[in-house]
Order: sequence, then structure tokens, then C-alpha cells
Amino acid sequence: MKRAVIAIHGGAGAISRANLSPEREREYVEALSAIAGTGQSMLEAGANALETVTEAVRLLEECPLFNAGIGSVFTAEETHELDACIMDGNSLKAGAVAGVKHLRNPVLAARLVLEQSPHVLLIGEGAEHFAVTHGMDKVPNALFSTELRFEQLRQAKIDGTTLLDHSGAPLDERSKMGTVGAVALDFAGNLAAATSTGGMTNKLPGRVGDSPLIGAGCYANNASVAVSCTGTGEVFMRTLAAYDISALMEYGGLSLNDACERVVIEKLPALGGSGGLIAVDREGNMVMPFNSEGMYRAYAYAGDTPTVGIYR
Amino acid sequence: MKRAVIAIHGGAGAISRANLSPEREREYVEALSAIAGTGQSMLEAGANALETVTEAVRLLEECPLFNAGIGSVFTAEETHELDACIMDGNSLKAGAVAGVKHLRNPVLAARLVLEQSPHVLLIGEGAEHFAVTHGMDKVPNALFSTELRFEQLRQAKIDGTTLLDHSGAPLDERSKMGTVGAVALDFAGNLAAATSTGGMTNKLPGRVGDSPLIGAGCYANNASVAVSCTGTGEVFMRTLAAYDISALMEYGGLSLNDACERVVIEKLPALGGSGGLIAVDREGNMVMPFNSEGMYRAYAYAGDTPTVGIYR
Repeated sequence: MKRAVIAIHGGAGAISRANLSPEREREYVEALSAIAGTGQSMLEAGANALETVTEAVRLLEECPLFNAGIGSVFTAEETHELDACIMDGNSLKAGAVAGVKHLRNPVLAARLVLEQSPHVLLIGEGAEHFAVTHGMDKVPNALFSTELRFEQLRQAKIDGTTLLDHSGAPLDERSKMGTVGAVALDFAGNLAAATSTGGMTNKLPGRVGDSPLIGAGCYANNASVAVSCTGTGEVFMRTLAAYDISALMEYGGLSLNDACERVVIEKLPALGGSGGLIAVDREGNMVMPFNSEGMYRAYAYAGDTPTVGIYR
Repeated sequence: MKRAVIAIHGGAGAISRANLSPEREREYVEALSAIAGTGQSMLEAGANALETVTEAVRLLEECPLFNAGIGSVFTAEETHELDACIMDGNSLKAGAVAGVKHLRNPVLAARLVLEQSPHVLLIGEGAEHFAVTHGMDKVPNALFSTELRFEQLRQAKIDGTTLLDHSGAPLDERSKMGTVGAVALDFAGNLAAATSTGGMTNKLPGRVGDSPLIGAGCYANNASVAVSCTGTGEVFMRTLAAYDISALMEYGGLSLNDACERVVIEKLPALGGSGGLIAVDREGNMVMPFNSEGMYRAYAYAGDTPTVGIYR
């Protein structure tokens, strides 16, 4: 019997003890622990990997601490545009939505695309129309707003960390507010991954990062690995970071750990990419590498209490 | 000195002598030959691979015979939603647009994203706004319409080959109208790839296929290969078809031909995928495999006359 496990992340970036108050730190630890705990309870009770990552990411979207769903960052136009995707390692089916503004839980919309359509990716109003047709409610865009995120947008505009300057310059560190994601292996040996995000503070409307793209920010295959990424999305897209780990394992014969190190410590930084990922392989090995200062993360094997990390 | 080469495709699908009149066949042969010829002349005159694939795909978009730009298929709502992407194998920079309705040449917008933004993928109105800000004109959506494509939509609706039934059923063969693309190796050893499409006849608005997604429908890396795909987009997305060829070569040690056969003849059909791709490696080897009845295609080494193919 496999050892079932869930891992989650709440974004990577310039996260250090110096800029996180003890109270705030406690909030993050409690949220990550509770959500990883829910995931391991589900696995222990016999839930499959796809159900488990769906619920974990839904809970991360509901928590205003993280940049996905409620608590998403603001675009330059003071709106929220959300992206999510999910992949089932058993069927290799996938579903994703990008640029949606009125769906409370983008990961549930992505799951609907996976299960109720012949498609993989739906964007914008078309994605919302599809979700509503399948019973989801439309919510006001302001549902996702929090004071903290608005203050971050205000600060980004003051600092000029805008993405509207069309300069082709590297993305500013302060705009990268993270992503959420989950990967799981269930007792039947199925892998699944899901990723969801509000994108980047002050982003150009219409910008889509790696989160909703299969093989970039999310990938799962029972033959190899399940991966969810967070960081400078554009570099994860150009390197196909999530699928690259699977290819390095399957074609290159690398271990899970070596494949993840190669991507996170060598290939992403070579193109200026920072961030991290969580990955679990078909044997239940689990790693959470990152090249940034910190990454909100937690994992729990079925039956165990969760282990939480924030800093290096 | 490398042997510079360009290859182009104009879509794969149920293309047979029985359903293509001699006159129509001649039009396709002439168009493919002229565009491949333009590409080889550019390479011979010293153009780089990125410039060459941009111009080849722009010409394919301008030609109403192909499902990209003018001559794009209709969505279920009788509109056109266009996708394109381009990747530079030298810098590994990429640019893409998806779901644009008012840009005459989506490949030029993708090139702008590559060169004038820190982003990789812009969608919908945000993509159009970005392009207009950089000097592109907005055109009416009806510019892309042709009588033939409207008749195909009418027929698809009569036949019930609609994508609105939300059935999760396999995509209908008749809805797959192809894509266009180009790959090139220049004399300096640079690889580039570009892909552009109008998507699928009668498609759900908001549906995005593999064409604008790096690693799915388009990939280029000077270290390995340049690839442009056409076919059942969703399967190319789930298999990361274009990047998979690079990974099979780089990590698995396969030749260009073996890597492409593995993907087109084994991996895609295993998930129900049909279509093909064009690929050129860093040595100037070139292949054009497909598992469908036909694929509009042509290639030309710099200084040579083009070779055109349609059927098996």
C-alpha cells in the first residue's frame, strides 16, 4: 500500500522573519496546518488525490492570507483577474480557467472544465459563462478585495513597480505575491495537482502567468510526479517547469529530488526566475524546494500531524 | 556553417484527394510553395530565424485558405477568436496572445509581447489594448470572415458538431480545421517557432487550444529543436507535445525523428489525439510527421526550391 500524502503551498517570495510579525506568522502557520490537516484527513478517509487537492486549494482560495480567491492581489485597474488549473495524474485529464473575475473558487471552475467539457482551458467571460451554465454562481469582483491588497497596489503604484511601462525590464520582486497550490498521492496510487492565483499586484489586465497552464505551473502524471509551482510565472512558462520535472525523471532517470533541484536551483535562476514548487512522486516521496527567501508550505502524510514551513 | 531551413504547415486533419478538388489543391500548393519560398529567400539573405517565422506565419494568416487570421473559423457565436505564439530559441523568450478579436495579425502581436513586455501571454481585451498601445491597429472582427468558413459553421450546427453540449465527449473530427505554423534554423544556428490559429469551428467562446501555449503548440530552443503543432489541441496541451520532443532529445537522447515519432505516432494517439507537427533541430534536420489523413506542409533549405506536401 502506498503512503498517501498531501503537500500545499501559499506562495514564494521575499518572505523573511524581518518582515513578518509574530502574530502574522502565527496566522499563516495555523492556516497552513489546518488545510494540510484537512487534506490528510480526507486521504485517510479514502478520498482520491483529485478530490483532496481540489478541497485544499478551495480552502486556500477562501483564506484571505493567500493570493488566490479572496485576498487576491489587484490589477493595475483595481480589479481582480483569477487563474486556476487542476490535473488528474490517472487520466491525464486537465482543466483550467484564466482571467475570470466573477467565480468565487476558480479551482472549482477548473475542475468543471476537466470533468464537464472536452476542453482544457477556458478564458474570461467564456469561462464564466461555462461555469454558470454548470451551476456556479457569479459573484461581484469586489468579493476578492481586502484592505491589505489594496494598500499593496497603492504602494506598487507609488514605487513605480508597475507592469504598464512596457519596458521589457525584469519583473519587480515586490509585485510577486505568490500563488497557492496542492499536490497529493492517494492510497490507490493516484497523483493530482492544482494551482490557483490572483496573479501579480498592479499587473497589466489580460496578463496570464504559469498557474493555469498545464506543464508550466501545474502537472500530474501517475507514471511520474505531481507538481504545483509558485514564483516568477513567465520563467516557469518558458521552462515548462512542472512538466520538466516529470521529463527529467522519466527520460533522464533523475530522482524526484535531483529533478526538482535541477529545475529550481539551476534552470529557473539561469533565466532570472525565482520561486519554488511542491512535488510528490508515485512512491510518496515529497520535496518543497525554493530559491527565494521563503515559501509558505506544509505537508502531511495520512495519519500524521502536518509539518509547516515558511522560511529557509 | 549550418544549413538554414524553413518549414511551414497549414493544418492537419481529414484532408484527402477525395475531398479536395484539383483546383483547390492547386491553390494550396501555390500558397504553401510561395510562403516557404519567401522564407528560404529571407534566410538566404541573412534574416534570422525569428524574423523568418514571423513573416511566414503573417503570410499564412493573410491567406484565406488557412485557419488563422483572414479565413479563420467561426465560434458558436459567429465571431472569430484568434490565438498565436512565437518563441526565440536563442533567448528562450516567448510571446503569445489568446482570444483576440480585433488584431489583423496575431503573430505580430505575439512578437510584440515577446519584445516589448516582461510577459509571455496576454489574453482578450488586455492583449488588444497592449498591441494598440504599441502601434497596432484595431480591425473589425468581420475582417476575418469568409463565406466558406460561415458555411462550415452552418454545417457544423446542422450536424450537431457543436462544442456547447458540455458532454465531455471527444471532439468531432469535422470541427478541427487546423492551425498554421513555421519553424526555422538560420545560418547563425538560431532556431525559432511560431503558431497561429482561429481555433475550432463552432467552438465555445473562450476556449483556448494548444496554439498560443509555449511547450504545447510551439517551442524553440537553440540547444535542441523548434516545433510547431496542429491537431486536437487539448491532447497536445495535456502531453506538452512541442516541449516533449525537446525533452526526449535532450534528456532521452533520441534523434529528432525518433522523438517526433514517439510523440505523434505513440503518445498523442494514446490519448485520442490526432494531428501533426513540423520540427527542425539545431543541425538542420527537418521532419513533418502526422497521424491524420493529411497535413498542408512545405519546407525549403536556403537556396533550394520548396517541397510541398498535402496527403500521406
